[in-house]
Amino acid sequence: MRQLYVGNKNYSSWSMRPWVLMKQAGIPFDEIFVRFDSFGPDSEFKRIIGPLNPTGLVPVLVEDGLAVWDTLAIAEYLAETCPEAQLWPADKAQRARARSICAEMHGGFQALRSACVMNIEADLAQQGALIWRDNAAARGDVARIISMWSELLADHAPSHADGMLFGRFSIADAYYAPVVMRLTRYALPVPVDVAGYMRRVEALPGVKAWVEGALAEHDFVAFDEPYRLKR
Amino acid sequence: MRQLYVGNKNYSSWSMRPWVLMKQAGIPFDEIFVRFDSFGPDSEFKRIIGPLNPTGLVPVLVEDGLAVWDTLAIAEYLAETCPEAQLWPADKAQRARARSICAEMHGGFQALRSACVMNIEADLAQQGALIWRDNAAARGDVARIISMWSELLADHAPSHADGMLFGRFSIADAYYAPVVMRLTRYALPVPVDVAGYMRRVEALPGVKAWVEGALAEHDFVAFDEPYRLKR
Ligand SMILES: N[C@@H](CCC(=O)N[C@@H](CS)C(=O)NCC(=O)O)C(=O)O
Ligand SMILES: N[C@@H](CCC(=O)N[C@@H](CS)C(=O)NCC(=O)O)C(=O)O
Repeated sequence: MRQLYVGNKNYSSWSMRPWVLMKQAGIPFDEIFVRFDSFGPDSEFKRIIGPLNPTGLVPVLVEDGLAVWDTLAIAEYLAETCPEAQLWPADKAQRARARSICAEMHGGFQALRSACVMNIEADLAQQGALIWRDNAAARGDVARIISMWSELLADHAPSHADGMLFGRFSIADAYYAPVVMRLTRYALPVPVDVAGYMRRVEALPGVKAWVEGALAEHDFVAFDEPYRLKR
Repeated sequence: MRQLYVGNKNYSSWSMRPWVLMKQAGIPFDEIFVRFDSFGPDSEFKRIIGPLNPTGLVPVLVEDGLAVWDTLAIAEYLAETCPEAQLWPADKAQRARARSICAEMHGGFQALRSACVMNIEADLAQQGALIWRDNAAARGDVARIISMWSELLADHAPSHADGMLFGRFSIADAYYAPVVMRLTRYALPVPVDVAGYMRRVEALPGVKAWVEGALAEHDFVAFDEPYRLKR
């Protein structure tokens, strides 16, 4: 039995990655939803997650009593456990490249992540315009993402009907799916090849299912809402 | 031919990880030292690293024309390329645990990392005492590290002469070696089991070689020196 503990679909960018990965790759799992709350030491959230994951964060994957935490470790664990799903590119050099950009996402893009908090149901185009005007570090993060995607799409997408970063869907696309959410919701400017990739990601059944869940949530978590006073 | 581009040994905690990993595991490589400078767009550092690594950071591993960047991707690449070195624990559950704590390090411990910048040659005990008194988030990071190490040492070290986190040396020890440097240089308080582990890490030939290199450097990089005016 494989269980994935996730937070609010509207806000939890880290939870989104392994959830979309498994859904899209057809890896069966049970979802356990843990609603965002105060995250205080006595909160319901920490009461559920604390005993499973010493960091107290979602996502957590639990399989046959083994808890795996931190998104990149979950992705590697799944790649190893479900080789038939081919979660990493089959070619060794491309696999190294995919791991490089996922590790880069795992530890980087702080400016974009803190300026453009993921909020799937919100239209944050006005906030996006101000961020774009005033926040050079966030613009730098977006520039790096655009050049990364453009280069990968030029190398892979034309040769593959799926048009993902490494041709067919891989961990890399799941890793950057929350970035697609940010770029669209904050309406940040991207070139046409990148816009095409973003549309293809939004059309993936695994991503659509996550977004539908986010839109159905109707929660308002104040500290994840730097830009809105209400829904 | 395998080349690792690293920054100043005294300061570059990320460079330390794959360097110590390969030295300690006996994986041959050539080191290419890229001295820290202004990191400005026209700096010598960026002139060398930029064409290899789109993030412009060290470490970078280059093997037969393939560049792999970001420490965790380098570690996974080496684990895959050199299976005989057994860089991850052999047991599947322990390997998942090792990956969890490495991913946790890769994306976390921001408070400790920014308060206690790695500086191998410096005695920063006084600064450490102030940080310990005033910085609750850094204390929280240290508490998490202590409980992580204590639990792993209790599970593994007694059964293995090497006394590393998973018994024999693995990527996990290389990943936390810069944390050992921080805890000792800033003289932060740790329990006796953890102090023993830290001594064993400092005695590893791979770690000793890195530290010797750091002590021989004699550079003073101002923005990596929040606490000293000179060497
Ligand atoms: N490095 C972690 C980050 C996980 C994370 O930050 N999760 C957030 C939700 S997206 C969380 O659980 N927050 C709870 C809290 O901050 O207490 C991973 O990759 O899984
Ligand atoms: N996530 C990266 C971090 C690498 C990193 O921050 N490297 C620092 C030296 S420790 C660097 O190259 N700094 C140059 C700069 O900031 O321009 C990794 O894991 O390799």
